[in-house]
Amino acid sequence: MTDIRYDVLGVGNAIVDVLASVDDAFIEKHELAKDAMLLIDEQRAEALYAAFPPGQEISGGSAANTLAGVASLGGRGAYIGKVAADQLGEVFAHDLRAAGVHYDTAPLKHGPATARCLIAVPPDARRAMNTFLGASTLMTEADIQEDLVKAATVIFLEGYLFDRDEAKAAFRRAAKLAKQHGRAVALTLSDVFCVERHRDSFRDLVKNHIDVLFANEAEIKSLYETEDFDAALKQARAEVKVAAVTRSEKGAVIVSGDQEARVPAEKVEKVVDTTGAGDLFAAGFLTGYSRGADLESCGRMGVIAAGEIISHMGARPHARLHELIETAGLRVPPAA
Amino acid sequence: MTDIRYDVLGVGNAIVDVLASVDDAFIEKHELAKDAMLLIDEQRAEALYAAFPPGQEISGGSAANTLAGVASLGGRGAYIGKVAADQLGEVFAHDLRAAGVHYDTAPLKHGPATARCLIAVPPDARRAMNTFLGASTLMTEADIQEDLVKAATVIFLEGYLFDRDEAKAAFRRAAKLAKQHGRAVALTLSDVFCVERHRDSFRDLVKNHIDVLFANEAEIKSLYETEDFDAALKQARAEVKVAAVTRSEKGAVIVSGDQEARVPAEKVEKVVDTTGAGDLFAAGFLTGYSRGADLESCGRMGVIAAGEIISHMGARPHARLHELIETAGLRVPPAA
Repeated sequence: MTDIRYDVLGVGNAIVDVLASVDDAFIEKHELAKDAMLLIDEQRAEALYAAFPPGQEISGGSAANTLAGVASLGGRGAYIGKVAADQLGEVFAHDLRAAGVHYDTAPLKHGPATARCLIAVPPDARRAMNTFLGASTLMTEADIQEDLVKAATVIFLEGYLFDRDEAKAAFRRAAKLAKQHGRAVALTLSDVFCVERHRDSFRDLVKNHIDVLFANEAEIKSLYETEDFDAALKQARAEVKVAAVTRSEKGAVIVSGDQEARVPAEKVEKVVDTTGAGDLFAAGFLTGYSRGADLESCGRMGVIAAGEIISHMGARPHARLHELIETAGLRVPPAA
Repeated sequence: MTDIRYDVLGVGNAIVDVLASVDDAFIEKHELAKDAMLLIDEQRAEALYAAFPPGQEISGGSAANTLAGVASLGGRGAYIGKVAADQLGEVFAHDLRAAGVHYDTAPLKHGPATARCLIAVPPDARRAMNTFLGASTLMTEADIQEDLVKAATVIFLEGYLFDRDEAKAAFRRAAKLAKQHGRAVALTLSDVFCVERHRDSFRDLVKNHIDVLFANEAEIKSLYETEDFDAALKQARAEVKVAAVTRSEKGAVIVSGDQEARVPAEKVEKVVDTTGAGDLFAAGFLTGYSRGADLESCGRMGVIAAGEIISHMGARPHARLHELIETAGLRVPPAA
């Protein structure tokens, strides 16, 4: 595998987050959903933004957050995702590159603006995400560069890509190229509503194309249409090489064949904003996994990275994650 | 004064801040100046942004920060400043309006982009600001709406406006209209480099047109070209109705005729980012002043607002400032 230049290549919706603190009355009045991502059209995005309190703009996007985390952990990352040729697109590209992630997807010239996610953060930190997909869904198969797929140990795909047909085609091409070049394919189910929207496609995809599956408890139960967590876990174990399931304050369970690791959650002094918790768990896990760390170490890196991200606003790391990992007595194995 | 609709009308450079945490080596390598604002051209802005770590975008601009503070304190505020008709301009307008500030300056259609300030925040929190003025300096006299000036108790001008001739003309018109309608005129000297660039103009302006002067210790010493703080204070006392001078951790000194108030600084658990400390001191002070509070109460509101802003990244308040004021046993007097 001498042509490997990246540990993880992420493919996802390139989005700039607009974060604002709100009270519960705001969540109720605007019918937002805590712990969830709702898709909104341009009209709704404008109306909601007009009602939004003063905010801060921070680059986001689920898989992009994961890759920023991989880089912060000392991993080598690349990303494919579509922004528009506008100011927020420049901000997105700047932040990802400045984080140390390779990013050169061509920006969209004539079309919708860079995607925005309006994130309302209530006092209990359980954010309500509202995404206007804009340019992000106009990623096409042509944007999936074969040389990048070939150069990465793991290709990481976000379930949100399934929300539009064009991006879905790009998604399928990425998975196909990965198989072709013998690369591992990881998928996050993204969101319980996302699973509900695409359950059949996901079931097929997971069974036939995915090596590493990320989900939280609600998502994996929804995928397998069961209320029994252990039953869902058992089914995932039978279908994928590795399933890493997060359970909020109960930590994470990782299963792989007859192996299983249970990792407690990090203690966080004050949970400020849960945006990005799953993304950063995947960052920690995949950084370890792509370098051949054992399941438990991968899981511990995941919960440490997730613990950092929920301690502040926004889904991109503030701390140098590799330092947190080292303080915890862990290390990312050297690249082969 | 039945036609008063606003306590404070701010006029300033409309800017979106890009904040990023850096180390001292970054400050040194890029020759940035802590505690100061440097003007940079588009080329330098691009080069510096390319070198910048991942950041967050938050609406800023000195007088706009002050007005956001006035609104958070329960005061009635309006603002005049120029953005471009672009994404960051929309963000700026949204945030100010969402903060409760009246803002309807027409955005610039064909010309430079919305102004950006690249703010590097080192571990000691003494931020280095680097401003590309863009559209903000293309505010003209026509943007100074007479009805807004007439409707406000105090017109608050930032010294930074003096950095370009077009904006300076707008500045002079605002001061002239204020006099005409019997409104008070307040000025902040903004920055010690700004004072050095415009000392003669400022001296003339302060002496002949300013009622309330805001400065920090370095700025007022530079204005009067003396190393003796008391001498500078004495001269200000002779020239303006009120001078409110901030001295970082030593608090503030306010002089007015034969009155004087000294207010200790707020205790802040951890100073994270000093951006906006002066702006928010002015917010607290002016909210009290425009409602007829005594000098000491005005000063105390100022240090409380400044204390909140330096406890987090960015120069717009996170907390509801009127609640902090009330907790401290203060109140904003009712509008007349």
